[in-house]
Amino acid sequence: MLQNSGFRPLGRQECLRLLAKVPVGRIVYTRQALPAVLPVNFCLGPDSAVLLRTSGDSDLARAVDGAVVAFEVDEFDAATRSGWSVVVTGRAGLVPDPAESEPPDGEGGPDSWMPVRDGVLVRIETEVVSGRELTG
Amino acid sequence: MLQNSGFRPLGRQECLRLLAKVPVGRIVYTRQALPAVLPVNFCLGPDSAVLLRTSGDSDLARAVDGAVVAFEVDEFDAATRSGWSVVVTGRAGLVPDPAESEPPDGEGGPDSWMPVRDGVLVRIETEVVSGRELTG
Repeated sequence: MLQNSGFRPLGRQECLRLLAKVPVGRIVYTRQALPAVLPVNFCLGPDSAVLLRTSGDSDLARAVDGAVVAFEVDEFDAATRSGWSVVVTGRAGLVPDPAESEPPDGEGGPDSWMPVRDGVLVRIETEVVSGRELTG
Repeated sequence: MLQNSGFRPLGRQECLRLLAKVPVGRIVYTRQALPAVLPVNFCLGPDSAVLLRTSGDSDLARAVDGAVVAFEVDEFDAATRSGWSVVVTGRAGLVPDPAESEPPDGEGGPDSWMPVRDGVLVRIETEVVSGRELTG
């Protein structure tokens, strides 16, 4: 079997730098006792929390409020079989108050690429951050 | 808030066609009662099962054998805020027998991009397949 030469684990600061590089990640949570995943555009807050918008009445908003979730980003190159991935694991919470969710200091979160009704901001604390680089 | 013009839900056949297009997806599972996610390269079997290789002694192999997992693939373009995503939800199982895991008919699964020890084939049944296209 062809095998890659290996992984390099990434430190927290390197993970946060890579997190800030890409516009889309995947929020991983539990819905009706089953693993669920949804790609979303996001940004990082000043304290490195992951911020994304969704509809206030969405399954996602209901499922993640107060729950521990994972949030994954990656970039891979098929030609060289190389790339990196970062996973944040932390508690998610809704920030429904517009005064809180769109403050003037820029921590209002991203505009959603997806259609959003009664948008709320989901905030994921970057409690545990792990990443690895796959060298081709 | 800027909003996208909308989603188009994708049918099963379109989802399977898109699944076959990309080399890397993310397996979503539960590890020690927490949501977990790992990007892996994969291929589709003749019956459209998702096939991937991992180390036989890995956390992944232990966590997913016999469990219902999700498997996600996507492609997004930040410039146009458009793209698509497909999620398979189904039972995962290990195929540890080399005679079964590397048959001559090509259902041996992909070579892993990752370093693998005592490789096993993970097979995810495409029981439920959903997808959506985001039009920019």
